[in-house]
Amino acid sequence: MASLLTGRRRWLVAGALGAALVAAAPVAIAANGSDSATGGSDSATGGSDRANARSSAGTGDRTTDVRSAIQGGSARNVILFLGDGMGQSEITSARNYERGAAGRLAMDELPLTGDYTTYAVEQNNPGKPNYVTDSAASGTGWATGVKTYNGAISVDAYGNPVPTILELAKRGGLRTGDVTTAEVQDATPAVLGSHVVSRDCKGPVETTAKCAVNAKENGGAGSIAEQLVQTRPDVLLGGGAKYFNQKVTAGKFAGKTVLDQAKAAGYNVVNTAADLAAAKKGKPVLGLFADGNMPVNWTGPAAVHGGTAPSRCTANPALPKTQPKLADQTRKALELLDDRHADKGFFLQVEGASIDKQDHAADPCGQIGETIDFDAAIAAGTAFARSHPDTLVLVTADHGHSSQIVEPTATPGLTATLITNEGANMTLAYGTAETGGSQSHTGTQVRIAAMGPQAANIVGLTNQTDLFGTLKRALRLR
Amino acid sequence: MASLLTGRRRWLVAGALGAALVAAAPVAIAANGSDSATGGSDSATGGSDRANARSSAGTGDRTTDVRSAIQGGSARNVILFLGDGMGQSEITSARNYERGAAGRLAMDELPLTGDYTTYAVEQNNPGKPNYVTDSAASGTGWATGVKTYNGAISVDAYGNPVPTILELAKRGGLRTGDVTTAEVQDATPAVLGSHVVSRDCKGPVETTAKCAVNAKENGGAGSIAEQLVQTRPDVLLGGGAKYFNQKVTAGKFAGKTVLDQAKAAGYNVVNTAADLAAAKKGKPVLGLFADGNMPVNWTGPAAVHGGTAPSRCTANPALPKTQPKLADQTRKALELLDDRHADKGFFLQVEGASIDKQDHAADPCGQIGETIDFDAAIAAGTAFARSHPDTLVLVTADHGHSSQIVEPTATPGLTATLITNEGANMTLAYGTAETGGSQSHTGTQVRIAAMGPQAANIVGLTNQTDLFGTLKRALRLR
Repeated sequence: MASLLTGRRRWLVAGALGAALVAAAPVAIAANGSDSATGGSDSATGGSDRANARSSAGTGDRTTDVRSAIQGGSARNVILFLGDGMGQSEITSARNYERGAAGRLAMDELPLTGDYTTYAVEQNNPGKPNYVTDSAASGTGWATGVKTYNGAISVDAYGNPVPTILELAKRGGLRTGDVTTAEVQDATPAVLGSHVVSRDCKGPVETTAKCAVNAKENGGAGSIAEQLVQTRPDVLLGGGAKYFNQKVTAGKFAGKTVLDQAKAAGYNVVNTAADLAAAKKGKPVLGLFADGNMPVNWTGPAAVHGGTAPSRCTANPALPKTQPKLADQTRKALELLDDRHADKGFFLQVEGASIDKQDHAADPCGQIGETIDFDAAIAAGTAFARSHPDTLVLVTADHGHSSQIVEPTATPGLTATLITNEGANMTLAYGTAETGGSQSHTGTQVRIAAMGPQAANIVGLTNQTDLFGTLKRALRLR
Repeated sequence: MASLLTGRRRWLVAGALGAALVAAAPVAIAANGSDSATGGSDSATGGSDRANARSSAGTGDRTTDVRSAIQGGSARNVILFLGDGMGQSEITSARNYERGAAGRLAMDELPLTGDYTTYAVEQNNPGKPNYVTDSAASGTGWATGVKTYNGAISVDAYGNPVPTILELAKRGGLRTGDVTTAEVQDATPAVLGSHVVSRDCKGPVETTAKCAVNAKENGGAGSIAEQLVQTRPDVLLGGGAKYFNQKVTAGKFAGKTVLDQAKAAGYNVVNTAADLAAAKKGKPVLGLFADGNMPVNWTGPAAVHGGTAPSRCTANPALPKTQPKLADQTRKALELLDDRHADKGFFLQVEGASIDKQDHAADPCGQIGETIDFDAAIAAGTAFARSHPDTLVLVTADHGHSSQIVEPTATPGLTATLITNEGANMTLAYGTAETGGSQSHTGTQVRIAAMGPQAANIVGLTNQTDLFGTLKRALRLR
């Protein structure tokens, strides 16, 4: 208890800093962030001196502020924000477009920062690195602490299941949540609550075809969808409804759908923003808002050979009005998971999944819109943490991606030029695949930022597997 | 004095941490680093858990260690290590090649980390950003605290000279040093001690042609070379001898060479590693080790369309045996600048310049070799700081660059595959210019790391212009 009190007292200092940061930032960020494609009007200023404007001492020296942001102790709650493919370039281009080069995103306000390496290893050969990870291997890294091969979902390099942070949290009596804009069976949400040898094994059909060792009919734990239901996080939100309509192949639910299995497990199943908003505490909530991945927020010019005319991003007209924003999903998850009368707190992961998917597609507005949507979810998380200071909030990525902010010159790859909210041209290049191909992940180390108890453990250079230790220690799990 | 003592006491804790970090790192890094193209034998390990192995408490919790690394107070000395174009990708690829994916570079050991934005602004319009900076504008940013246009050397967006951190340090009674692997007139070393409207104005000839306002014959301060001599740092080391052979056009030294001017200013001029090693304290030292940029350390396959066979990097056979390494230059600069009997300390900038130049050239071994060479210089700097704990050491970059670590698939750009020291293949892609063209800088935010007094001011997200404030405050300059 002493350490908790210490944590709380320290927080108050950091909280005051947080308020000062927001107040003095070039654009005040609303508590719920901003997800419009047209808002913002910052201008970059010559000689801007951000840090000097933001030290609580007014001297420009942030030493005391940074020291105050460092808390030891333990965390009652953890919120892990995972921007899929959100490398330094993806963060910078989204900031430039929406807030201006001198502006600040919600994710920029987390006081402690570091970098981690993301590499995977070879299947059956964990001593040999694969320098370019996929989301499955990298997600398994922080979910379990174990490096594995590309495509592996919380199994080690030899295919053996490894316990995940969400499973440990649940076993420890915490409430748990797993939220994404992708299919809930996609790699990043999947690594928290399932163990299969290939990320493709999202439903029973795929599992029979590609993950025989995991298939129910062979005595395995089943597909990702089935295992997520069996793990039973209190909140499971995203897309991927179609895999829930497949039929379980063996066992108690043989012949019934995975959705039937979910309902039998007690899930309140919701499909729209309104139904999600109406969901009450007491039952676990399964939100399925799309058959596949949830549609993206923004649209705009695709990057092409020779570049595009300077263009603006616009709201995606195909976005269903019934679809919740990631910030809505996040706020609801926090409402459902938070219980001040309970003995224990919660673990929640929130993924901005389609930053990666739109980067793969060389779609700059798609990518930036998803980054801004993700940032609004982060704003919801940091607002929660300000009123619940025993919460560790982390923002990171699983790997870098292709997009680069470049000079507006000819490149062999694909480019598009956007007119940002501050009225300047920004050219994004995608040089790792041809038109219509899938742009490559990159093997770069990526940024991690954090606030709250144990946040100091992300400072410096770590490995994505180290994050598992940080989460486990923060929540005092075994 | 109280604050200095506090700084020193705090340092001892951080110093113990530093020792622990090195001891437990996968490969112990020799004090002088390593610059061989063939050394190293790390293997990446499945489930590696770097941070847990490195907390001084042995519990995996680094909270106390990070807190101990935060010092306020002031710094007697500052060493700023600037890796030109050294974005996250350039750091990661060099680490992968030389130390292995799980290994650590000297620059990875700095305990505090953050990111800064690097954008420039438009000439005569400082309110309008240019999202992709060059080295001149970015260097002017941290040298003066002012955002300016690409090509500007410590002049503002309107061409007005702005005082630099080196000039302030000199005026404040500190000794100063400016060390590079490029021409000393190249943008990054130039911004410390000269003010011209175009980075091209390296000697009198170019200045007459392109910077009339700065030309001596027009009453200006002269070319970059002339102004560097007039600013007279105590140590000025790099390439660029050819500009010193040009003739001054007007004033006291009219008709004489810039080298004559340097000798008249008291400079001891050296041209080889041996002469540099023999240089004594008492006179300022001008080291000119090449006519242009200093030759690079490694060579290997150029990136090409369709990629290369997996290859190793080799030592550059064209590297003159008389040329000092950047680590040699750094150690000598520290020896010449350090004076424990003096009232004041020093400011030293060390640039690894050709990381950028080899990235422009799509030469992965050239680029990695220069990053490793730069890292060895950083090791020399951190070794100095361990025995001189009132030293602030910073490692950062001026902008990101093109190289990306990618999956070994077809790309529209240029690729090369290297066999790293741990025996794995690493493919680097350069997708922003055609064969023979110059690969583009990128507009991404970049990493900054630091140790020592005031180092906490680089944590979080800042601007490269904020670094000027940090340096000035650390050295208590006005």
